[in-house]
Amino acid sequence: MSPRSPAQHGKAAHQPSPLFASISSARICSASVLSRPAARFMPLSASRWSLDGARAAAPSGACHTQFRKHAQALALAARESSIPAHIVMPSVSRPNKVAATKGYGAIVYPSGSTSVEREAVANEVIAATGARLVPPYDHPDIMLGQGTMGLEFQDQARDLLPAGKRDLDAIVTPCGGGGMLSGVALSCEGTGIRVYGSEPEYEGADDAKRGYEAGKRVETVKSRTIADGLRTPLGVHPWGVIYERKLVSAMFSVSEDDILQATKLVFERFKLVIEPSAAVPLATALYNEDFRAMVEREAGEAGWDLGLVFSGGNIAVDGLAELFAAKQQP
Amino acid sequence: MSPRSPAQHGKAAHQPSPLFASISSARICSASVLSRPAARFMPLSASRWSLDGARAAAPSGACHTQFRKHAQALALAARESSIPAHIVMPSVSRPNKVAATKGYGAIVYPSGSTSVEREAVANEVIAATGARLVPPYDHPDIMLGQGTMGLEFQDQARDLLPAGKRDLDAIVTPCGGGGMLSGVALSCEGTGIRVYGSEPEYEGADDAKRGYEAGKRVETVKSRTIADGLRTPLGVHPWGVIYERKLVSAMFSVSEDDILQATKLVFERFKLVIEPSAAVPLATALYNEDFRAMVEREAGEAGWDLGLVFSGGNIAVDGLAELFAAKQQP
Repeated sequence: MSPRSPAQHGKAAHQPSPLFASISSARICSASVLSRPAARFMPLSASRWSLDGARAAAPSGACHTQFRKHAQALALAARESSIPAHIVMPSVSRPNKVAATKGYGAIVYPSGSTSVEREAVANEVIAATGARLVPPYDHPDIMLGQGTMGLEFQDQARDLLPAGKRDLDAIVTPCGGGGMLSGVALSCEGTGIRVYGSEPEYEGADDAKRGYEAGKRVETVKSRTIADGLRTPLGVHPWGVIYERKLVSAMFSVSEDDILQATKLVFERFKLVIEPSAAVPLATALYNEDFRAMVEREAGEAGWDLGLVFSGGNIAVDGLAELFAAKQQP
Repeated sequence: MSPRSPAQHGKAAHQPSPLFASISSARICSASVLSRPAARFMPLSASRWSLDGARAAAPSGACHTQFRKHAQALALAARESSIPAHIVMPSVSRPNKVAATKGYGAIVYPSGSTSVEREAVANEVIAATGARLVPPYDHPDIMLGQGTMGLEFQDQARDLLPAGKRDLDAIVTPCGGGGMLSGVALSCEGTGIRVYGSEPEYEGADDAKRGYEAGKRVETVKSRTIADGLRTPLGVHPWGVIYERKLVSAMFSVSEDDILQATKLVFERFKLVIEPSAAVPLATALYNEDFRAMVEREAGEAGWDLGLVFSGGNIAVDGLAELFAAKQQP
């Protein structure tokens, strides 16, 4: 399977995520971390990645249990496809998130906060409406939809590459459930672009890395990492692409401090608001010794043009302040 | 006088600032503020606006007294033009700002923190090196250089406009010394695009608005507004463009709370890090009753496609946290 470009999906309301090349980060990188060869960074802010996947998976009405911003993406995709979106959200959800989801035209159903309670409500909704359940990541359509982001990234990156160079050398993508990582990997199949996954290591959140290295998928994770979008265990379908088909070349993990430092760097130098989960690839590229050694070994004098996926900006001003207050005063 | 496009200046290392169209802000705007007609927003994050102006004004070596990020823009422009940049910065400057300026290849001279002390050092440097003083805003070259941002904005906005529509209806730009506002106004001359200036009102920081309405430039300002990039009085050259030639149609001012609210909105919905000064145009568009009444009166049923310039992301994580902590607990 391979993803189709947004244009092939019908491009209505598709606005590409912006691509930035950061002079300051390239400098930081070449000066102090990947000293030779240098890697230039091209991060993609991928906030709309799951739209196409949600659209593909929900041809006739969609039901979804709240799973971070995927609910909003699904609501928007459903509206654009003129089908109803039924979203189950815990009653404790922040009012602005509920309002945003409703704002995209979804019908929101309150539930208790556990997954069992959410699923019970979802089953009632499905029984009453005939809607189809759309999983957040463990489904081939969702993976392919997220792969459209990989294609978009490759297209945009070409404009920033040195003359005569056609593609990025590598892309590093965050890995939680693995939907996005596997989608990006599918989008790079046959291009020669290496794809790497990156995870938080705190309290065993590096389940995909451990599974990849042991040859057996880790099925459960219980971690309180600040990269809270990546606490999910790797799904069965993504595992097939990432490990069995080896479309991902290696997995890396980073510490909480490294993630926080990368988040701050993106905030202050890239001027982008991202949640800690989204900073994990940059933390890997800047601070992971194994990654650094690999680049030095494989890239030669020319260095790498490295794509980093920044996915997720689900953090409020207050949340950001708390995050840094808590972590900077140990 | 009229500005030239970045391509006409020689486009080496010119990376256009990203342009975003925000669904959420358009919704907020149409739902609760500019209810009819709706205005769609197209903000430009203009962090590189003064590069071309600095390059034009410094053909043979440039000296500059530290004035926020303009110093870094000058350093980069000088390096791209292969001329030395001499930057005078107060000894109390934050180390990361000094490092960033040096990182762009500038020679940095420490000085005392008052403008008198800075100017004394600058005069010594000029005498010793033959460099030319580059003012931060009150110079025709700088205004024209900033006008390149206006041209770039118009170009990029066309891609987001409805089919058949050639230009934005209006652009709102922050106004401190008036260099950028006058540059944008020059770039829009003859296009039919209305240009508006926006300022903080706190402690008389709305000097340009008061001067514009009284027909006499206000020469001094002493305000502690949180929009600290806009504490400067309107310069003589910008005044000529803004008021005497009436290339700016009107001036608006906004409260501290409105600025803070707009900053938070940009952070949480646009996912962009901007300083409060940069949020002033959005605060005007969302919360200023006079602006709202004008749009309702002039736009008719079709509404306006409104460009907002976001200029300045000079805020650290800690600074942002302090700003909201201080303002949210009155």
